[in-house]
Amino acid sequence: MSDSMLAVVKDESAPGAHVRDVKVPEIGLTDVLVKVKVASVCGTDLHIYNWDSWAQHRIHPPLIPGHEFCGTVAAIGGEVTTVKEGDFVSAEMHVACGKCYQCRTGEAHICQFVKIIGVDADGAFAEYVKIPESNIWKLDPAIPLEYASILDPLGNAVHTVLAGEIAAKTVAITGAGPIGLFSIAVARAVGATKIFVIEPNEYRRRIAQQMKADYVLDPKAIDVKQYISDVTDNLGVDVVLEMAGHPDAIRTAFDIVRRGGRISLLGLTSKPISLNFSEDIIFKGITIQGINGRRMYQTWYQMQALLKAGKLDLHPVITDRMSMKDFSKGMDRLRSGEASKILLYPNGVK
Amino acid sequence: MSDSMLAVVKDESAPGAHVRDVKVPEIGLTDVLVKVKVASVCGTDLHIYNWDSWAQHRIHPPLIPGHEFCGTVAAIGGEVTTVKEGDFVSAEMHVACGKCYQCRTGEAHICQFVKIIGVDADGAFAEYVKIPESNIWKLDPAIPLEYASILDPLGNAVHTVLAGEIAAKTVAITGAGPIGLFSIAVARAVGATKIFVIEPNEYRRRIAQQMKADYVLDPKAIDVKQYISDVTDNLGVDVVLEMAGHPDAIRTAFDIVRRGGRISLLGLTSKPISLNFSEDIIFKGITIQGINGRRMYQTWYQMQALLKAGKLDLHPVITDRMSMKDFSKGMDRLRSGEASKILLYPNGVK
Amino acid sequence: MSDSMLAVVKDESAPGAHVRDVKVPEIGLTDVLVKVKVASVCGTDLHIYNWDSWAQHRIHPPLIPGHEFCGTVAAIGGEVTTVKEGDFVSAEMHVACGKCYQCRTGEAHICQFVKIIGVDADGAFAEYVKIPESNIWKLDPAIPLEYASILDPLGNAVHTVLAGEIAAKTVAITGAGPIGLFSIAVARAVGATKIFVIEPNEYRRRIAQQMKADYVLDPKAIDVKQYISDVTDNLGVDVVLEMAGHPDAIRTAFDIVRRGGRISLLGLTSKPISLNFSEDIIFKGITIQGINGRRMYQTWYQMQALLKAGKLDLHPVITDRMSMKDFSKGMDRLRSGEASKILLYPNGVK
Amino acid sequence: MSDSMLAVVKDESAPGAHVRDVKVPEIGLTDVLVKVKVASVCGTDLHIYNWDSWAQHRIHPPLIPGHEFCGTVAAIGGEVTTVKEGDFVSAEMHVACGKCYQCRTGEAHICQFVKIIGVDADGAFAEYVKIPESNIWKLDPAIPLEYASILDPLGNAVHTVLAGEIAAKTVAITGAGPIGLFSIAVARAVGATKIFVIEPNEYRRRIAQQMKADYVLDPKAIDVKQYISDVTDNLGVDVVLEMAGHPDAIRTAFDIVRRGGRISLLGLTSKPISLNFSEDIIFKGITIQGINGRRMYQTWYQMQALLKAGKLDLHPVITDRMSMKDFSKGMDRLRSGEASKILLYPNGVK
Repeated sequence: MSDSMLAVVKDESAPGAHVRDVKVPEIGLTDVLVKVKVASVCGTDLHIYNWDSWAQHRIHPPLIPGHEFCGTVAAIGGEVTTVKEGDFVSAEMHVACGKCYQCRTGEAHICQFVKIIGVDADGAFAEYVKIPESNIWKLDPAIPLEYASILDPLGNAVHTVLAGEIAAKTVAITGAGPIGLFSIAVARAVGATKIFVIEPNEYRRRIAQQMKADYVLDPKAIDVKQYISDVTDNLGVDVVLEMAGHPDAIRTAFDIVRRGGRISLLGLTSKPISLNFSEDIIFKGITIQGINGRRMYQTWYQMQALLKAGKLDLHPVITDRMSMKDFSKGMDRLRSGEASKILLYPNGVK
Repeated sequence: MSDSMLAVVKDESAPGAHVRDVKVPEIGLTDVLVKVKVASVCGTDLHIYNWDSWAQHRIHPPLIPGHEFCGTVAAIGGEVTTVKEGDFVSAEMHVACGKCYQCRTGEAHICQFVKIIGVDADGAFAEYVKIPESNIWKLDPAIPLEYASILDPLGNAVHTVLAGEIAAKTVAITGAGPIGLFSIAVARAVGATKIFVIEPNEYRRRIAQQMKADYVLDPKAIDVKQYISDVTDNLGVDVVLEMAGHPDAIRTAFDIVRRGGRISLLGLTSKPISLNFSEDIIFKGITIQGINGRRMYQTWYQMQALLKAGKLDLHPVITDRMSMKDFSKGMDRLRSGEASKILLYPNGVK
Repeated sequence: MSDSMLAVVKDESAPGAHVRDVKVPEIGLTDVLVKVKVASVCGTDLHIYNWDSWAQHRIHPPLIPGHEFCGTVAAIGGEVTTVKEGDFVSAEMHVACGKCYQCRTGEAHICQFVKIIGVDADGAFAEYVKIPESNIWKLDPAIPLEYASILDPLGNAVHTVLAGEIAAKTVAITGAGPIGLFSIAVARAVGATKIFVIEPNEYRRRIAQQMKADYVLDPKAIDVKQYISDVTDNLGVDVVLEMAGHPDAIRTAFDIVRRGGRISLLGLTSKPISLNFSEDIIFKGITIQGINGRRMYQTWYQMQALLKAGKLDLHPVITDRMSMKDFSKGMDRLRSGEASKILLYPNGVK
Repeated sequence: MSDSMLAVVKDESAPGAHVRDVKVPEIGLTDVLVKVKVASVCGTDLHIYNWDSWAQHRIHPPLIPGHEFCGTVAAIGGEVTTVKEGDFVSAEMHVACGKCYQCRTGEAHICQFVKIIGVDADGAFAEYVKIPESNIWKLDPAIPLEYASILDPLGNAVHTVLAGEIAAKTVAITGAGPIGLFSIAVARAVGATKIFVIEPNEYRRRIAQQMKADYVLDPKAIDVKQYISDVTDNLGVDVVLEMAGHPDAIRTAFDIVRRGGRISLLGLTSKPISLNFSEDIIFKGITIQGINGRRMYQTWYQMQALLKAGKLDLHPVITDRMSMKDFSKGMDRLRSGEASKILLYPNGVK
């Protein structure tokens, strides 16, 4: 094994990134070095590439981004016991402190001192990535390589869908980015009986159709509130999964949820959102949840079980496969609004 | 409309029943008279027919049995507002008192003073049956007639499956009578990822296969505990639905449930069951639930949503269709162990 | 019994109300006529008196307001079975339809078609009030008359406090109106370990002290967020009960709740509230609940049990007792900000 | 610091134990050495001393028993960051593997591979005890030394009481050993409104009275089922905490729980328990929970919060204080049935 490797590097506090040679990470006693087979691109990576306001405050170059991937174990530290060289793995990239109140009470996904590999430390857009053993997720070889590379966002979807009752419920998903699209498959698999998707982008709506949503609605073309009211006996939907992070989508979420329903919020937005608390929340007796990351590690077990049982068909969401060296091309594809999940192959697409 | 009708009548405190003419029930201001289209036979009806120990203590002849059915509204009382003549309906046959602690706190399915139509009052094995409006369940015409006649036991299955977490869980069903068989379909529909059925009767195992259980096990032929341990990485199953009411099945339930799992008990047994509380319950930290009836009316909404979404294929369970006048033949079929759900047609099979 | 009675009447679509003679209500077969012993005044009654924008849209004069009271049964309809003449009673004044989805699934407190006695029909500021039997709550004679007259707002407090985990939790109450003050007593009784009250009005803060809140904070004088952070090891509070309905209090609620905590919203506001969803809700992984009314009838059982066990000392909240004919004086007292709960006696204070 | 220390040692596979000099434990990089201030005696220690059947299968002499204690940090391993020399601490003595399904899903208290310090490794009946940092619980100096030494069994009580709804509920505790007695205080603190204790031993009943149980019942003298039925309007109790582990007490638990209630089982028994599943569990729709250990570390936070808020008065339960060298005398006291919690002081009672 060479001591240098190819990686995407954010070298400067400015837009862009370079694909160049860097040193292979050195691992400690409790670390695992993973040879990356496939990595996938998240909206966060585009924020870093674009060097937007969020990135300027959070990112300290030089940094290798990338937090969605799968690969095989290349080397293990001396105290590692749960995986061995050659094992097929992915990883939870939120490294929790393990010592705060949240970590010690089963809520590590909202750890006060979390560090994210690929954001706060070098990530997976590289030939090798270093992961603490605690965060390694050993994969069943039966899970397809492509699916194994998108467990992070699939985990967001599973966490959101299963954050409350869902079986035999009607569900609306506002926003059909990759996580919204994954949520269609997850909600179907666990017994949601009517799935509405609300999405203004036609390209995304088309994929939502392929994911077998029951109703795919264009909010620019129809009165979504009225439509859903008609289809649900004037009740509204039991559950809204808000995955757009756009003020219009959030407004819709509150309009369409039924009395006593739940809204689970995943989509991030930096814009202030204005609500009428009495009418939107209190009289309706609804519950609103903030959803962050994936539960460690309940969500991973759930996701693995659903995948192994063949209950999730995610293929329509994977729209692009490219060599890691074409990273900038991938960024352009994302900006076009005509790509959903993009997979990167460190050693070229096979 | 004639004032007499054909009905199955338990006339005497002895085994057997007669099919004969009786008066059509008179309805009060808040009652609904339903013309029965299809009724289905429950194990309870066989107990009544056989006049076993339970029946001798509970039943006061003369009685028209039958508590699973669907039909159309033939007449309504003066204060009835939610259905009208001709509506397609079924009914919850547990008539709760509405005034006890359980009824006033959302637990009417375990009402202290419940009366069951078909057990404590004249039931549905007749051309007409009288039901209080509160218990009528108006059906979507899209629901097939045969399925509409088995909502009572299907509701037992839905109630049991959804009495705790089930999505992405492994599930074992002990006992493949009709409710156990329905539970396969329900558990699949709401995201159970491995479904084991344990059943000694070959005929029933064959139907369990048709219902698409993942593993159908004969406890006389294999070591069920060892088998399930092997298939679940030595963990055991997350959930056991006990639907046999047989001591061997109950013993198996405790053997195969994982630490922290749940056992939901539906199958009735008059035999004493002996457990080692320390090993079977406490060290494993499991939860055991007694399941009775169906939640009023959460279960009905859930069941209806699953049926309308086409998520349940129940056909393999319906093994016999016969004219109501052949009731005794139906009892013989049940006793043979080579029938599952038997449908009765008051006016002959069409 | 005379057929006329004294009552507070909102006669016109304008500010004010008259105390005058009206007819005693006639009851139907399922109604109960209650002789009012004590009624208490809610903020809603002041809205009606002031004839504000909300009242103009909701109220149809003539109307007898008043929805908090206790009394004795004066007469019962022919089908009433659960109370008899002379029984000591109060009532749930939200009359649910009993037929909508929410009513049939244990959520009658958010019924789609609820009518409120004292808002949509004649209420309890009168010598007699008519209540449907279903809504009558029979009281243990051991419960003091004064407490029996404030079960409606006490129920709001119990519902809010018990809407999630509370034992061994830290709790902040924003707004020390009567329901906020009652919530101190309830939270103490069920094991909250640190109770913060945030209230700008000095008079109310003094009562909060008497109710034994652990920390009573004036948001005009100190930095509440910093203070609570210091006292909670930089964690924030587990639970916020928002009972002010004021934008500043709501802002504070989101500032002080810990990651993974809950905010239960009861305080109504007509002003738009603006939030940063990412920072305020999603990254923190909090849960927000809209709380309306009282659970029928779980809250009533809980409240009764706590009162009978002597676990609630509510005396400091009851600041005024007056004859019903002095209703307008009561309105002035409320407007002064120097009164909390005002009790009205139809036949004079004894 | 000397390299030898005084300890209680189970030297042989036979009844008894010696108090003698042993080596002070050596600590590793992630360990903490604690100087024991006070240890307390559990029934398990008596099993080990008596060398009963359970002990013969589980214990491998030589062993220092003892798993309830508090003390100060005497030394820390090189990687320990959360405590320093002199800190006041106790510890969770269940050392979970951290890698099994239960550990990775927030259920470490039922870890498949748990090791218990004081049972499977040298414990706290010694001047010093070695604990992994992960299991150390840093204590607020405000918590009294005596209470700090009994957090393990107090944690059992807190875990059991809070394993379901308890506020405003009626509760029966079967068995008034130390954990049963602690449960009275905990249940009172979190809003249980009627607390029944059922205990045949008069000495224990007297302490239950001092702990302020509402009803202390002798099952040899009265008909407990009838008594509780009378006091609860024929309903039965909402919650039973079974802490006796005796067949009669378990029988009583099922007799007195109301329809829809919960039974939480903590008391261990090696005797087979026989139930009528239909009547005892299914028709009543009850929930039964096996309770093991304490939740890591939710229970510890809850316990600490209750103690710091002064909500628990546990003094009546602590009946004996003695020097550790008098260990055998302590065993005799326990056998007499006239002692409850016994505290041991390694360096003599002060």
